[in-house]
Amino acid sequence: MKSKPKIIRFTLLLSMLTLCFSSSAEDQVWDIKSRMVPAPAGASEKIRQSIASTPLPDPAAARNMFTDEKTINWGEMIKATSSSRDASALKLATSLGVSIKKHKIEGITIYHVDPAKVDPRFSNSMFLYVHGGAYVFGGGDGSVSEAAVIASTSKIRVISVDYRMPPKDPFPSAVDDVVVVYKHLLDEKKAAKSIAIGGTSAGGGLALAAVHKFKALGLQLPGAIYAGTPWADLTKTGDTLFTNEGLDRVLVTYDGLLGAAARLYADGHDMQDPFISPVYGNFSGFPPTYLVTGTRDMFLSDTARTHRKLRAAGVVADLNVYEGLSHAGYAFNLTSPESIQVYSEMRDFLLAQLN
Amino acid sequence: MKSKPKIIRFTLLLSMLTLCFSSSAEDQVWDIKSRMVPAPAGASEKIRQSIASTPLPDPAAARNMFTDEKTINWGEMIKATSSSRDASALKLATSLGVSIKKHKIEGITIYHVDPAKVDPRFSNSMFLYVHGGAYVFGGGDGSVSEAAVIASTSKIRVISVDYRMPPKDPFPSAVDDVVVVYKHLLDEKKAAKSIAIGGTSAGGGLALAAVHKFKALGLQLPGAIYAGTPWADLTKTGDTLFTNEGLDRVLVTYDGLLGAAARLYADGHDMQDPFISPVYGNFSGFPPTYLVTGTRDMFLSDTARTHRKLRAAGVVADLNVYEGLSHAGYAFNLTSPESIQVYSEMRDFLLAQLN
Repeated sequence: MKSKPKIIRFTLLLSMLTLCFSSSAEDQVWDIKSRMVPAPAGASEKIRQSIASTPLPDPAAARNMFTDEKTINWGEMIKATSSSRDASALKLATSLGVSIKKHKIEGITIYHVDPAKVDPRFSNSMFLYVHGGAYVFGGGDGSVSEAAVIASTSKIRVISVDYRMPPKDPFPSAVDDVVVVYKHLLDEKKAAKSIAIGGTSAGGGLALAAVHKFKALGLQLPGAIYAGTPWADLTKTGDTLFTNEGLDRVLVTYDGLLGAAARLYADGHDMQDPFISPVYGNFSGFPPTYLVTGTRDMFLSDTARTHRKLRAAGVVADLNVYEGLSHAGYAFNLTSPESIQVYSEMRDFLLAQLN
Repeated sequence: MKSKPKIIRFTLLLSMLTLCFSSSAEDQVWDIKSRMVPAPAGASEKIRQSIASTPLPDPAAARNMFTDEKTINWGEMIKATSSSRDASALKLATSLGVSIKKHKIEGITIYHVDPAKVDPRFSNSMFLYVHGGAYVFGGGDGSVSEAAVIASTSKIRVISVDYRMPPKDPFPSAVDDVVVVYKHLLDEKKAAKSIAIGGTSAGGGLALAAVHKFKALGLQLPGAIYAGTPWADLTKTGDTLFTNEGLDRVLVTYDGLLGAAARLYADGHDMQDPFISPVYGNFSGFPPTYLVTGTRDMFLSDTARTHRKLRAAGVVADLNVYEGLSHAGYAFNLTSPESIQVYSEMRDFLLAQLN
C-alpha cells in the first residue's frame, strides 16, 4: 500500500509538515489534461445562465488570429470596437441619471461624470477614473461606462481621463496624461486624500502605475485606489494566464490580442518597468486599495500578487474574488448580484477611506 | 471582419456593458482542452522549485483508486497516515520551542500547545485549534502540527481538539466535541471575545460550522476565526473543484478520496446542512475572519464563497490568495516566504481582533 503514489500524495494532504522534494529535477511544464467544466453552480443565476449560454472559448483560434502586433490593423480594430460602445456608454449614463461633460485639461480630453445628487460625505471628493481596454482600446465617449456606474452607485463626482494610446502614443503617454490630470486636481487645491483613483483591467493597472509615478514625482498620494482585476503585469508571468486559459471567456488567451497589445503599448521598453507593470514596483506608502477578481479571471494572479505586495508593504488592501467570474465579469453583467456587490462594497470602501 | 467570433469576444472585453445571451440555450458543460502549465514564475523560489519537482498529479488514477467509500479500508488508511505524522508533529513542536500537554475535557482529548513565551497582549487569549484531514484523518498527536506553528508565530496559547471522527463517529460528533470544548472555556470565565477558533482545510470548515452551532445554541461568539482554505462545502459545487482539478497537487480531484470522505463524514445527512457545509449558513453576527487560499487550490472557490457570504452579512473578512499555491500549500512548506506571510499576518489579525 505504501508504494502507491496516491497514498503518498494523501499523506501530503494530512502531514502539515515541510516536504522535501528532489531539488535536482529540471523545471517541469505540466501537461494538464482536458476536463469537463460545468457552469459554476455557486455563482448567481444570472452569471451561471450567462456562462452556460456562452460558446466555448477557443484559445487556439484566438492565438492564430493575432500573432504579430506589427501585422494587426490596430486603427481599424479600434474604430470597429468603439463606434457602438460610444453610443451605448452615453445611453447607459443617461439611464443611470449621470451627466457627461467633455472638457480639456492641458490638451488632454477628460469627461466630468456626475451623479444626479452627490453624497454629502463625498462633497469634497473626486474619483479619477482610468478606463480599461488593454492599453490600446476603450478611449473616447465609450470610456465613461464604468465611470458612470461608479458615479451612480457611489454618488461621487468622477473625472474620466481619455488618455493617449498606441499605435500613435505608446507608453509613457498614458501615464503622463494621468499625472497631468492628477496634478491639475492638486493645483485646484483638491486634497490628495479626498481623491480616489482606479478602474478595471488596463485601467486598474494604469492607476497603480500612475501612483508609482506620483510617488516618484514626490506628489501627495490619493486617498484610495480601485484596482478592478488590474492588468498589473504585462509579461506572461501570472499563474492564471496559464491555468485559466480558455476558461476566461473574456480574455481567452494571452498569446493573441493580449500579448500583442502589451508589446504595442510597451513599445520596446522593459515590461518589468513598474510604470508599465506596476506589480514590480515598491508599494510602500500606497493608499488603501480595493481589489476585485474572479475564479476564472486570467488576471486573478495579477490581482492576488498585487494584493500580496500591498499587504507585504503594510498597506490596507481588500481582495475580493467572485465565484465563476471571468475577467471583469462584474462590469459586463451590471444587473447581476455580483456586480451590485462589487460597486456597493466599493462605495463603502471609499466612504471609509476618503475622509 | 465583424463576422469573426474573436472580434465579437473582444468587443465583450471592451464594452463594459451588460451583454445579452440567448437564454434558451441548455446548460453547457465546457470541454476545456489540455494545456501546458509551467511552475508559477511569480511564486517564491521555494514554492516554484517544489512544484517544478513534483510529479504531474493524475486525477484519473486518483479517481480509480477511491471510487466507493464503502469499500475503502478506512481504519487501515488512518493508521498508515498517522504513525509517521505523530512523531513528526511532536518533533516540529520541539524544534519550535512549543510544549505539548495532552488532557481530557469531558472525555474529549485535547492538547495544550503552548509557546515558550506568551505575547503579553495575548495573556488572556486562547486559540481553539481544529485540525484538518478531510473530516476523517489527522487526529491524534499528529493534529498538533499547525497548532504548534500558530503557537510559535503568534505567541498565543493554543488548545487543539482531537475531535471524534468516522468511520466510528461521523457527523455530528466532530461539531459536538468542538462545542463541548468551547463551552468549557466559557465556563472557565474565558471571555468569548478573547478566543480565536480555526484551522486549515476540514479544520477551517469545522471551525465555521462550529460557530454556526454556537449561534444556534445562543452562545457568545469567539473574537476571531481563522479559515485556512476551509472545506466549507462538501458537495461538488465549487467552481475550482473543476477548474483546478489536476492542478492542485494536494487534493488532485474531488472524485476520489475527497468525495468518499465527504460521504463517510456526512453519514447520510444532507450535505447542505450548514453544520456540515458551513457556506450554506447565515453568517450574520460572525466574528472577524481571516481566510487564506491559493490560485491552484481546489478550495479557492470554497474560500472565496465563504468570504463573500461573510462580507454580504457585514462581517469583517480578510481574503488572501497566494500565487501558485495548491490546497494548504503554506502549511506544507513552512520555510517558504508564503508560509511566513500567512502566519505573520494571522498574528497581526489576531492582535487586532482579540481585544
